[in-house]
Amino acid sequence: MSSRLLPAFGPEMLSPLSFLDRAAVVYGDRTAVVDGSFTLTYEGLNRRCRQLAGALHDTGLKPGDRVSVLSPNTHALLETHFGVPAAGGVLNALNTRLSLDELAYIIGHAESRVLVCDRDLLPTGMAVAERVPHDVLLIESGHAESDYERRIAAASAYHSPLDDEWSLLSLNYTSGTTGRPKGVMYAHRGAYLQAFAMVAQSGLDSKTVFLWTLPMFHCNGWCFPWAVTAVGGTHLALRTVRPDAIWAAIRDHGVTHFNAAPTVLTMLASHPDAAPAPRRVRIATGGAPPSPTLLARLSDLNLDVTHLYGLTETYGPAVICDWRPEWDTLDDGEQARLKARQGVSNLAGLPLRVVDDQGRDVPADGETTGEVLLRGNNVMLGYYRDPDATREATVEGPGGAWFRTGDIGVLHSNHYLELRDRKKDVIISGGENIASIEVEQALDSHPDVVESAVVGAPDPLWGEILVAFVTLKPACTTSAEDLIAHVRSRLARFKAPKRIEFGELPKTSTGKVQKFVLRRRVQDPSRR
Amino acid sequence: MSSRLLPAFGPEMLSPLSFLDRAAVVYGDRTAVVDGSFTLTYEGLNRRCRQLAGALHDTGLKPGDRVSVLSPNTHALLETHFGVPAAGGVLNALNTRLSLDELAYIIGHAESRVLVCDRDLLPTGMAVAERVPHDVLLIESGHAESDYERRIAAASAYHSPLDDEWSLLSLNYTSGTTGRPKGVMYAHRGAYLQAFAMVAQSGLDSKTVFLWTLPMFHCNGWCFPWAVTAVGGTHLALRTVRPDAIWAAIRDHGVTHFNAAPTVLTMLASHPDAAPAPRRVRIATGGAPPSPTLLARLSDLNLDVTHLYGLTETYGPAVICDWRPEWDTLDDGEQARLKARQGVSNLAGLPLRVVDDQGRDVPADGETTGEVLLRGNNVMLGYYRDPDATREATVEGPGGAWFRTGDIGVLHSNHYLELRDRKKDVIISGGENIASIEVEQALDSHPDVVESAVVGAPDPLWGEILVAFVTLKPACTTSAEDLIAHVRSRLARFKAPKRIEFGELPKTSTGKVQKFVLRRRVQDPSRR
Repeated sequence: MSSRLLPAFGPEMLSPLSFLDRAAVVYGDRTAVVDGSFTLTYEGLNRRCRQLAGALHDTGLKPGDRVSVLSPNTHALLETHFGVPAAGGVLNALNTRLSLDELAYIIGHAESRVLVCDRDLLPTGMAVAERVPHDVLLIESGHAESDYERRIAAASAYHSPLDDEWSLLSLNYTSGTTGRPKGVMYAHRGAYLQAFAMVAQSGLDSKTVFLWTLPMFHCNGWCFPWAVTAVGGTHLALRTVRPDAIWAAIRDHGVTHFNAAPTVLTMLASHPDAAPAPRRVRIATGGAPPSPTLLARLSDLNLDVTHLYGLTETYGPAVICDWRPEWDTLDDGEQARLKARQGVSNLAGLPLRVVDDQGRDVPADGETTGEVLLRGNNVMLGYYRDPDATREATVEGPGGAWFRTGDIGVLHSNHYLELRDRKKDVIISGGENIASIEVEQALDSHPDVVESAVVGAPDPLWGEILVAFVTLKPACTTSAEDLIAHVRSRLARFKAPKRIEFGELPKTSTGKVQKFVLRRRVQDPSRR
Repeated sequence: MSSRLLPAFGPEMLSPLSFLDRAAVVYGDRTAVVDGSFTLTYEGLNRRCRQLAGALHDTGLKPGDRVSVLSPNTHALLETHFGVPAAGGVLNALNTRLSLDELAYIIGHAESRVLVCDRDLLPTGMAVAERVPHDVLLIESGHAESDYERRIAAASAYHSPLDDEWSLLSLNYTSGTTGRPKGVMYAHRGAYLQAFAMVAQSGLDSKTVFLWTLPMFHCNGWCFPWAVTAVGGTHLALRTVRPDAIWAAIRDHGVTHFNAAPTVLTMLASHPDAAPAPRRVRIATGGAPPSPTLLARLSDLNLDVTHLYGLTETYGPAVICDWRPEWDTLDDGEQARLKARQGVSNLAGLPLRVVDDQGRDVPADGETTGEVLLRGNNVMLGYYRDPDATREATVEGPGGAWFRTGDIGVLHSNHYLELRDRKKDVIISGGENIASIEVEQALDSHPDVVESAVVGAPDPLWGEILVAFVTLKPACTTSAEDLIAHVRSRLARFKAPKRIEFGELPKTSTGKVQKFVLRRRVQDPSRR
């Protein structure tokens, strides 16, 4: 091979920040953000983000320092997606539904120097900042006289130079399958390419009006803060995901795209405000396949659903059920069956693999199950300060290391993936991933509990709900309500079981709990 | 800055070859190519391209070796866009309209080891191979019993590993403004990102049926061989760009996209077969803005035109007249005026700049002219074996070196570019760039000629035609026909002047030819 060629006109780093740099020039006068009565053009959004970078720089933030943000989907949370990395910092957007303990753990693990906190979450933010062992600068956001606004107004524009596209852009903590959340490291390069893939595969363009139903704290909103900006579309902020507010936005603001958990779609379809959208709306959903009935109802409402699959570790959706025009003529049932599949790797990734226990690719026969492996520029750098966890998630394959998703699926003959099970024992309820082991540990910490097992039961609204099976110590009479309150005192509210059944747990001869028996019971109540 | 992070699951190189690797898996059974009665699925296209790589490898091709191709838009030319780099080689697609001298110069300069040559161009290919000072292996393509087909059939699959995304993918020679074509170096990374930008900005998806009117030898078909493959669309090959064939493809094959010079659009609009397309067709055109009358006519035919601008040095279109939805309600004349602008940098590039003689950005006032500068991952690595030319095309600016296009334009208040003139004295006729200096040198080489000046005159079909002003030696009576024949014996036929006027040339006091006077004459015949 000849010696390396040096580009005469580069190298130009891949960074999602460049999308705002460009939008500020080429879409400067277009509407970037609508957040209630607060609106910004792209020129204005860019100016504010650079001033936010300046304000953070003024606090003494050094390159690579972490900045946590605790906020619903406001313009401020959007701005931190540009302003924090522009300051040279690393963005850590926090799940607002977590408990104080969980939030304090994450901020402590990330050693964030700053916490931007929305007005509505200020008590939480203050309590968390107190619990963290190191000093955290709390900056309140969410209203015109806030500290956040005053700092921006007082700051000069700043833009830290980027000399390595592999450098850390953000940290997104997983729900954790071993009790503690892990910090997933996103690189500038990966987020740039994933955003590009989202533009291409969601059909974003300058006509896009994107409604922020998906929380930006989930995988940085699947990189849509950057993707929508890339095409000069409009971000519609939304503090609370309520079906009436979504229908109002569709009706009044010409929404073209949003991303939402199946739960939200179910609520939308059955809401009294439901009426066919004035423009076709493209919706991406993950977590669970929408039912044929729901799909038909949404189609009547001019809502077109695409099914996706991804993980925090893959910058959001790495897999998309890419719809083929040759399927348009199939009947509704067949179309729903195809739409229920997770699909194929997006443009930024290598074709996904499904492998057996020996790491061999399973045949694409729609029957043989195996673990789903992913690789590509939209796979994380690794887990933050946790090389062991990174190693455990790694398996060697063609081209190098592949990421083990822990999910079990089959490949159909056209190489479209369909998930069958989750190896890691995760329950998805209302779009949130919940590790059953974490809930079991919380239950087991109650003095009256011998042991417990948590499984997901199908639910028409939430996708799945948590059902716990608990064995109490002899003569103990703790109630289900007591145990639920106990879990809520330790974990985020959404992690508490909805139902508890008491009794012996079914076990193998070696004493391992047979979760499949419990799952069967909750799927088919007659087996109880 | 902290030390560099090494991605645990990468790095995965950016290369347009990965689009075919992916398409072979996720779109394996979809139609990739239709070339007359010859069709290929993506699985089949991938297999052939890998075997082509194997066949080239079998010839002893070493990494970095150049492979030239002389072919109209056939499946073979498409295959070389994947097979040559998969063999570790560098693709050099040749303009089939060039003269023997020009072709021999390019193959000699590139030192290509192999020349793949279509059956229809075989006499040219053989003559060229003889003129080149080094050994060239000629491989005929274009029919079922060709050497190309035999070699593919006999070869095993091969795929050279790629260890550097900045490495050389292809060499595309410019028309040359200083007499000799320059070899523009494309990198794997640049082509990958430009293809991604083309997907996003042309709205390519799995419904795409792309008609190959634009020659693939122009900037590797603006990277569409890779972009259409990325989305699993269908390539419709087309040997000869005739309006009846284009209308037949639109009618019978459901074409959704094609790219063509304005000349082709003019021919289409006035052809007897013209009838509204059954599906909306998105057309990208460059070189000259289509007239309001033409745009209105094309719109009636369900053909939607986007105006682009780019150079060989920028992987094709670096600038796109990105249509804004807020312009939809303007009247036709105003829309045509906006469509005539070249637009804004595409997603893979930095916002373009227009600078004055001192390198200062001109105001975005729609009036102040300056030279257009480009930068981004879709700007070439440099000119092959010509550091001086690379240096001349370079100017320092924000972030590093910027590429000087040589074109003069203004920025409108929304930062949309409108070209006003070409600094480099290039004439664009029928979609081909022609350097006037090259034609002047050919004219001047005639023994009866004292001096000459060539300018472009507006032409409704070709965009521009070449008009030469020639001063003959005293008492010489060489005719215009003689001189045109003389030019044709030295250059490609399309470079010969269409009209020659004899007489003294207008000059400045320092003896420089005043081309603007000649241009005025051909634009307004009353001034002759």
